[in-house]
Amino acid sequence: MIERYTRQEMGNIWRLENRFECMRRVEVAVAQAQAELKIIPVKAAQDISKKSKFSVDRILEIEKTTKHDVIAFVSNLAENVGENGRFIHYGLTSSDVLDTALSLQILEAAKVLNKSLNKLLDSFKKKIEKHKSTLCSGRTHGMHAEPTTFGLKLAGHMAEFERHQLRFLKAMEQMAIGKLSGAVGTYSMQSEKVEEAVCKKLGLVPEVIATQVIPRDRHAEVFTALAMLGAGLERLAIEFRHLQRTEVAEVYEGFSSGQKGSSAMPHKKNPISSENITGVARLLRSYQQAAMEDIALWHERDISHSSVERVIFPDAFILCDYALDRMANVLENLQVDKERMVQNMQFSQGQLFSSHVLLSLVNQGLSREEAYRHVQRVSHSLKAGESFKDKLLKDKEVKSYFSKKELEEIFSGQRHTKQILKVISRMGRKSNGKERTALRG
Amino acid sequence: MIERYTRQEMGNIWRLENRFECMRRVEVAVAQAQAELKIIPVKAAQDISKKSKFSVDRILEIEKTTKHDVIAFVSNLAENVGENGRFIHYGLTSSDVLDTALSLQILEAAKVLNKSLNKLLDSFKKKIEKHKSTLCSGRTHGMHAEPTTFGLKLAGHMAEFERHQLRFLKAMEQMAIGKLSGAVGTYSMQSEKVEEAVCKKLGLVPEVIATQVIPRDRHAEVFTALAMLGAGLERLAIEFRHLQRTEVAEVYEGFSSGQKGSSAMPHKKNPISSENITGVARLLRSYQQAAMEDIALWHERDISHSSVERVIFPDAFILCDYALDRMANVLENLQVDKERMVQNMQFSQGQLFSSHVLLSLVNQGLSREEAYRHVQRVSHSLKAGESFKDKLLKDKEVKSYFSKKELEEIFSGQRHTKQILKVISRMGRKSNGKERTALRG
Amino acid sequence: MIERYTRQEMGNIWRLENRFECMRRVEVAVAQAQAELKIIPVKAAQDISKKSKFSVDRILEIEKTTKHDVIAFVSNLAENVGENGRFIHYGLTSSDVLDTALSLQILEAAKVLNKSLNKLLDSFKKKIEKHKSTLCSGRTHGMHAEPTTFGLKLAGHMAEFERHQLRFLKAMEQMAIGKLSGAVGTYSMQSEKVEEAVCKKLGLVPEVIATQVIPRDRHAEVFTALAMLGAGLERLAIEFRHLQRTEVAEVYEGFSSGQKGSSAMPHKKNPISSENITGVARLLRSYQQAAMEDIALWHERDISHSSVERVIFPDAFILCDYALDRMANVLENLQVDKERMVQNMQFSQGQLFSSHVLLSLVNQGLSREEAYRHVQRVSHSLKAGESFKDKLLKDKEVKSYFSKKELEEIFSGQRHTKQILKVISRMGRKSNGKERTALRG
Amino acid sequence: MIERYTRQEMGNIWRLENRFECMRRVEVAVAQAQAELKIIPVKAAQDISKKSKFSVDRILEIEKTTKHDVIAFVSNLAENVGENGRFIHYGLTSSDVLDTALSLQILEAAKVLNKSLNKLLDSFKKKIEKHKSTLCSGRTHGMHAEPTTFGLKLAGHMAEFERHQLRFLKAMEQMAIGKLSGAVGTYSMQSEKVEEAVCKKLGLVPEVIATQVIPRDRHAEVFTALAMLGAGLERLAIEFRHLQRTEVAEVYEGFSSGQKGSSAMPHKKNPISSENITGVARLLRSYQQAAMEDIALWHERDISHSSVERVIFPDAFILCDYALDRMANVLENLQVDKERMVQNMQFSQGQLFSSHVLLSLVNQGLSREEAYRHVQRVSHSLKAGESFKDKLLKDKEVKSYFSKKELEEIFSGQRHTKQILKVISRMGRKSNGKERTALRG
Repeated sequence: MIERYTRQEMGNIWRLENRFECMRRVEVAVAQAQAELKIIPVKAAQDISKKSKFSVDRILEIEKTTKHDVIAFVSNLAENVGENGRFIHYGLTSSDVLDTALSLQILEAAKVLNKSLNKLLDSFKKKIEKHKSTLCSGRTHGMHAEPTTFGLKLAGHMAEFERHQLRFLKAMEQMAIGKLSGAVGTYSMQSEKVEEAVCKKLGLVPEVIATQVIPRDRHAEVFTALAMLGAGLERLAIEFRHLQRTEVAEVYEGFSSGQKGSSAMPHKKNPISSENITGVARLLRSYQQAAMEDIALWHERDISHSSVERVIFPDAFILCDYALDRMANVLENLQVDKERMVQNMQFSQGQLFSSHVLLSLVNQGLSREEAYRHVQRVSHSLKAGESFKDKLLKDKEVKSYFSKKELEEIFSGQRHTKQILKVISRMGRKSNGKERTALRG
Repeated sequence: MIERYTRQEMGNIWRLENRFECMRRVEVAVAQAQAELKIIPVKAAQDISKKSKFSVDRILEIEKTTKHDVIAFVSNLAENVGENGRFIHYGLTSSDVLDTALSLQILEAAKVLNKSLNKLLDSFKKKIEKHKSTLCSGRTHGMHAEPTTFGLKLAGHMAEFERHQLRFLKAMEQMAIGKLSGAVGTYSMQSEKVEEAVCKKLGLVPEVIATQVIPRDRHAEVFTALAMLGAGLERLAIEFRHLQRTEVAEVYEGFSSGQKGSSAMPHKKNPISSENITGVARLLRSYQQAAMEDIALWHERDISHSSVERVIFPDAFILCDYALDRMANVLENLQVDKERMVQNMQFSQGQLFSSHVLLSLVNQGLSREEAYRHVQRVSHSLKAGESFKDKLLKDKEVKSYFSKKELEEIFSGQRHTKQILKVISRMGRKSNGKERTALRG
Repeated sequence: MIERYTRQEMGNIWRLENRFECMRRVEVAVAQAQAELKIIPVKAAQDISKKSKFSVDRILEIEKTTKHDVIAFVSNLAENVGENGRFIHYGLTSSDVLDTALSLQILEAAKVLNKSLNKLLDSFKKKIEKHKSTLCSGRTHGMHAEPTTFGLKLAGHMAEFERHQLRFLKAMEQMAIGKLSGAVGTYSMQSEKVEEAVCKKLGLVPEVIATQVIPRDRHAEVFTALAMLGAGLERLAIEFRHLQRTEVAEVYEGFSSGQKGSSAMPHKKNPISSENITGVARLLRSYQQAAMEDIALWHERDISHSSVERVIFPDAFILCDYALDRMANVLENLQVDKERMVQNMQFSQGQLFSSHVLLSLVNQGLSREEAYRHVQRVSHSLKAGESFKDKLLKDKEVKSYFSKKELEEIFSGQRHTKQILKVISRMGRKSNGKERTALRG
Repeated sequence: MIERYTRQEMGNIWRLENRFECMRRVEVAVAQAQAELKIIPVKAAQDISKKSKFSVDRILEIEKTTKHDVIAFVSNLAENVGENGRFIHYGLTSSDVLDTALSLQILEAAKVLNKSLNKLLDSFKKKIEKHKSTLCSGRTHGMHAEPTTFGLKLAGHMAEFERHQLRFLKAMEQMAIGKLSGAVGTYSMQSEKVEEAVCKKLGLVPEVIATQVIPRDRHAEVFTALAMLGAGLERLAIEFRHLQRTEVAEVYEGFSSGQKGSSAMPHKKNPISSENITGVARLLRSYQQAAMEDIALWHERDISHSSVERVIFPDAFILCDYALDRMANVLENLQVDKERMVQNMQFSQGQLFSSHVLLSLVNQGLSREEAYRHVQRVSHSLKAGESFKDKLLKDKEVKSYFSKKELEEIFSGQRHTKQILKVISRMGRKSNGKERTALRG
C-alpha cells in the first residue's frame, strides 16, 4: 500500500501469501498427526497434504461474507481438497492455527534477519582488524579524554552487537512455540498428543500453559530484541555521524559517483545512511512499546493485539533487517582518514594525556589532590596554540618531576596501543556468552 | 507492500503520487511568485505552471543515480517543461519544497480525518438523544456505584472527543506552515517576499524562524493529536467491550448475517471492532513517541526524522482515520438492551443507592461518620438475594429515619434522570471551547 | 523528598548511604588488589580497608565546591584514612567506581526483588492447588467461550511469571559486570589484572570491552525485565478486576475491618490493589523506554544517562518490588466464590459448550460447514432464559444426532477437568527453562 | 524518600502538606457555597473556614484503619472543627475533592514552572541581542552548509520555546477545571449550583461532563506540554554539546572555580549541565507515555491512574522546572568564542558558500544541472588545505563567470547578516500566537 524500505527476502515473508502458506503448513501437519494418531482417516491426511491449495484473492472474497479470515482460509482449502476437506481444521480453533503459523513466520524472519546481523558482524571483524592500531581520540562528554584506537571503538560496538545477537537468538528460542490446545487452552477437543506431534513436525515446542493464544510476553520479547538491535545501530550511527562532521572528518560514508548531497549546496557529502538508521531505531523502540501493551489481554485473550501485530510484525522485522544490512554496507565502505585522526588529537593541545601526567606525579609521591591541582592549573591556563607538554616542562612547580624523555613517552600514546590490542583480542569472550547456536547452525 | 487497513481517500493522500503532486504545487507557486516579483521571466513561470508533469517511475529511475529524491523530482519536471525547466527550484533547497509540500499533504489528510471525526460526532448525537434517559448502572472500579443513563455515558465520551477535536484542529492550525528560507533558514538565496507570496497562494503561513526545516515540534504536535484521538477511541472501545461481556450484555456491536465469530465456537458474537480499535490506539501512541524523538535534530537539522516520518505520517493518519470511521459505524449500529440495563442494576441488590441513603441519614441529623457506619454495616451484611432496601427497613438502628415512601423514592432512580438531562444539555459548552473553525468552514 | 510507596528493604538499597557504601566496597577491593599486585603498599590497603568511612553530609558539603560527586566522595574517604588516603582511587576514573558500584547495588536490589517474586510464586502454588478443579467460564473477547478452571487460569499466569523470572535472572546475570578499564576503556593507567582481581572479590565479571562505562544495553535489559514483570502483574491485575466486577463477582480482594471503600458510597468494596498495580505497570513500561534511549551515548560515553538513572533505578526497583509484594498479598487473601463461578456459567445458557456440540456433529459425519451452520443457527436463535441444550434436543435438524445422555455429558463440563489437571501438572516444564539458578541459590 | 533534584518552591507544591492544603481549600469553598445556598448552616461554614486544620501525621494514622486517604483527611478536619465538622464533605464524593484539589495544585505548579520558563526566555533575549551578528557555520547533517549567526541559532530555539510556552499555557487553561458532580457525574447529591459557586471561588471552570473524575485526557495534555518543553530543552542542550566538543569549541558552559571535571583527567571541562538536561528530556517523554495510558479508565473510572499520578505529577513538574532553570543558567553563563566561530568556518575551505556560487552561475545563464555539475566537481576535488574560492578562480570552465571581486563578496558572508537581522526581528510574530495571557498576568 504505502511504499517503504524493504529487502525482498524479508518482505516476502510478511506478505499475505506466506502468512497463509504458514497456516497451510500447520493444517497439513495437524492432519498428518491426526492420521498417525488414528483420529482422521489416513486418506484424508494424504488428500489434505497433496491438494490443499489456496488463493489469496479467493480467501479475501470469502472473508467478505464470514468476516473471519481463518474460516475463509479453511473454506478455500476445503474447496480445493474436495470431500476430505471436512477433516481440515479438525478439532482446532482459529488461534491454534494463527499463533502456531505466526511462530513459523517469525522464525523464518529471524533466519533472514540473523543473516543481515552476521553480515554486519563480518564487516566489523574486517574493519577492526584493519584499524586495531589506528590511533585516535577517545572522547567523553564529546570532549577529548584519552587516546584510543579506531579498532577498539569498533570492537566495543561489535561486542554490544554480540550481546544483542544473543538476546535476539534467546528471544527466538523462546518464540519457537506451537499451540493447539483449543479455545481456552484446555485441550477440550484435541489431545495433547496432536499438539506434541505437530510441534515436532514443525520444529516447535508446545506452549506450557496457553490461553486461547500463545501468551504475548513471548512476542514482546521478540520486539524488545529488535528494539535492542535498533539501539545498537543507533549508537554506532551516531558515532559515525559525529566522526564525519566537518570539524572532525575522521570517517566518511561512501559517496557514489553521480550522487548528489543537496539540491542547493553542491559540496555536500552527508552521513545520510547513518542518519536514516538513527530514525529507524526510533521506530523499533516505538513498536516495542506497543508490543508491551499487548501482553495484558483480557481473560483467556481478547483480540486487541491483532491490529497491532498486523502492523508491527512486518514493519519491525523489515525495518530492522533493512537497517542492519544498510549499516553493514556503511561499515564495509567506510572511508577512514587515519591522518586526520592523528591531527585531530592536537585539538586538545596534548591534554589527552593529562591523566598520565597526573598518575606520574602521584607516582613521584605527590598526593592525589596536590597532583590534580597542578595538572588542572597548567591545563586550564593553556592558551590557543600552546602545547600542554611544553607548558608542563616550563612550569616551576611540576617541571622537577619529569625528565623530557619521560614526558615524550607519555605524550607518544604508544603505551596505549599495546594494551588496546590485548583488549580487542577479548572479543567474543565469556560474558558475551556461548549460546549462539539456535539459528546459526 | 504490506497489506493493511486503509480507507481509499486517506490512502491516496499518502501515496508517492500525491507527495510529488504536493511538491509540484510548491514549485509552481514558487515560479509564479518569482515571476510576479520579477525574479524569473513570466514566460518561465507560465511554462512551469502548464507543462510541469512528473512520472513516479521516471523519478525513481533518476534517483538511482542521484540518490537524492528531490533532485530526481526536479530533473523530471525540468525534462517535461523544456528550456524553461532551468527556472524550476530556483533559489530553493530541497527542504523548502519537501517541508512546504508536507504541510500541504498533512492539511489534506487533516480534512479527510476531520470528516471521519465529524461522522463519529454525529453518531454520538443520535445515540445520546435516543438514550439520554436510558437508566443503567454507573460503575467505578468496575463496581456498581450510582445510577446514570446510557446517554450520559456517551455524552461524557462525546465531550472528550470534542476536546480531542479542538486539539486536533489546533495542531493542524499550527502546522499550516510554509518555509522557503533556504539551506539554514537565512533567506540567503531567496527573498522573504517569495516565501510570503508562495505561502499566501498555498494557504499557509511562513515559519517564524526556521532551520533548514520547519521545526519538528510542530509535527510532534500533530502526532500527539492523533494519539489523543486514539486514546479517546480506546476509552470508548473499552466501555463497549465491558458492556458487551457475557455477564453484562447491555450493548452489542452489530453482527451481520453470514458473519462467524469463531471457527470453533459457533455461538460467539464478539466486540471485534472495539478490540481492533483498542489495538490501533496503542499504535497511535507509539508513533507519537517516535515523533517526539524527532524534535531534537542536530544543528540546523539532520535527516534522522525522515525515515521515521516516511512510516508514521501515512500509518498514523491512515490508522486513525480508519479507526474513527470504524467506531462511527460501531456506534451507529450499536444494539442497546435497555431491559438488561435495568435488570443488571439489581446485581448490587439496591446498593447503587447507598450514597442517597447516607445523605438522607445525615439530613436527619446523624453525623457523617455515624451514618456511614450504619449504611456500611447493613450493606456489608447483605446476603445473596437479599434487598438492601428491605434490610434497611428492618434494621433496628436506622429504620426510624425513613418512611417506606421516602425509601421507595430514593430507590427509584428517578431523581437522577432529571438532573442528567440537564447535564447532557451542556454538551458543547464553554470549556470545550469555541474555536472549532479552521477545517470545519 | 516526595512521598511514595516503598518497602523498607528495597528503599534502603537505593538511598545515598548505600550508594556510597557500594562505592566504598569497590575502592577497598581496588586497594586490596593493588596491594596484592604490589602496586600500592600493603599498609595503605590495610588502612583503606579499616579506616575508610564516609558521611553523606560531609560528601555533599565537599561537592558544593568540586561539583563532582566522586571526587567529593574520595576526598571524604581520604580525610578519614589519613596519610594513606592518597592511595584511594589510585589509577581509577570515576566511572570505574560508579559503574562497578552500580552493578553491586543492582544485584543487591535483584535479590530483594527476587524474594518478592518468589513470594508471589508461592502464593500462586497454593491457590492453584486449591482451585485446580474449580470450574468457571473461560472467556475470549470478554465473552464466554468454553469452561476452564480457576486453577488453570492462575497456572497460566504463573507460567508467565516463571518466564518473567527467567528473563529477570538472565538480565541480572548479564549485569554482574565490573569495569576498571579507565577513562576510555584502554587500561591506560591500570592493569587488566587489577580489574580481574577486584571483580573476583566482588562476585562480578569484567566487562569484555567497555567505553568509559559499562555499556548501557546491559542496564536497558534490566529495565526491560522489570517492565516485563510489570506487564505480567498487569495481566493478572486486570483478570482480578474483571472477576470482581459487580456482575461477575467471582473473586474479591480481601477487605479489612474498618476499611472504607468510598467516602460517598458506603457499600463499596473495590479491587483497589489490582488497580494500583495496573498503574505501576504503566510506570515500569515508561522507565524502560527512557532506559532504551540511554543506550546511544556519544563516543566513549556522555553523561546524559546519569540524570535518567538517578531517577529510574530507585523508582523502577522500588515500584516493581512493591507491586510484586502487594500482588502476593492479594493472591494470598483472594476470596474465591466457587458457587458464583458455577452460576455465572449459566449466563451463556449453555453456549459455553457449543464447540463440543460442533465437534460431536462432525464426528457423526456432518461436514464442518454444515455442522457449524446448525450450531450457530440454534445458538443465535436462543432467547433470554432459554437453554441451549434443551433447544438442541428439540431442534428438528440436529436432535437425531444426539442422545440425551450424550448431551448431558457434553454439558457437564466434566470432560474438561481431567484434561485440565494434566495441563496444570506441566507447570515448570521445559520451555519455561531450567536456568533458575543465579540468584536463587 | 529517594534523593533527587528539586527546586524548593516547586518541591513544596508537591508535598503531602500542600496536597492536603489544596483539599482543605476545596472543602472550605464547598462549605461556604453550601451556606450561601442555604444548604448548610452559616455557622457551620464559618466554623469550617476558621477551624479546619489538619496534621499530615494524624491523617496517616487514621488512614491505617480506613485505608482511604480522603476519609482519613475529612475525619481529621472534623475532629478539629468540632460539632460542625459533620458538615464537612457534605454531599461530596472523594474524587470531587481530590480532582478539584489536584487542579489547584497543578495550577500552582504551573505558575512556578512558567517563571522558570520566562527566566529562560529572558536569557535567550539577552544572548540573542548580543550575538545576532556573530557569524558562524550553519550545519546540516552535522556538516557545514551555509553561514548563519549564533544569534539566529538561538532565536530559532527561542521561537520553539515560545511555541512550547503557548502549548503549556493552553494545557493549563484546559486544566483549570473543578468537578463536584458526585459519584458518577450526575449531581445526584449536590446541585450544579454548588459546583458553579465553588469553581468561581477557586478560579476554576466546572467540568462539562465528568465521570467520577475529571477525564484524564486533560491531565495527559499537561504531561504532553511538559514533554514538549523537555524536547525543546533537549534540542538546545544537544546544540550546546555539539558546539562545545573539543574540535568545535565555539561555546562553553561556565566552569566555576574549584570545580573538577573528571577524577582522572584534570583538564576536563564538560558540558555536564546540557547532558543532564538531555537525560531529563527522556524522563519527561516517558512520563507522558504513562499519562496517555491513564486516559482509558474503565466505565465511570477506575483508580489505576492514581498510582501513576502519585509519581509523575511531582516528578515531571519538578524535573521540568529544574531543567528549565538549569538551562537558563547555562544560557546566562554561556561563554561564546566568536573568533573560534570564524576560524571554524575555514574547516570547509570555503564550501559554506557553494550554494551562492551555484546561484550565481545560474544567474549567468547556466542551466541548474550544468552549474551544479561544475560546482560539485570543483568542490569534490578540493584537497586538504586548498581554498574553494581560489580553485574556482583557477577553474577553466567556470572562472570566466566571475570577477574576483564578485567572488570576494560571495565569500565574505556579509550578504547573510543583513538578512539575518531581519529574521531575528520576527521573534514573537504571529504564528507564535498571541494568547500568552493565562498565567503571565
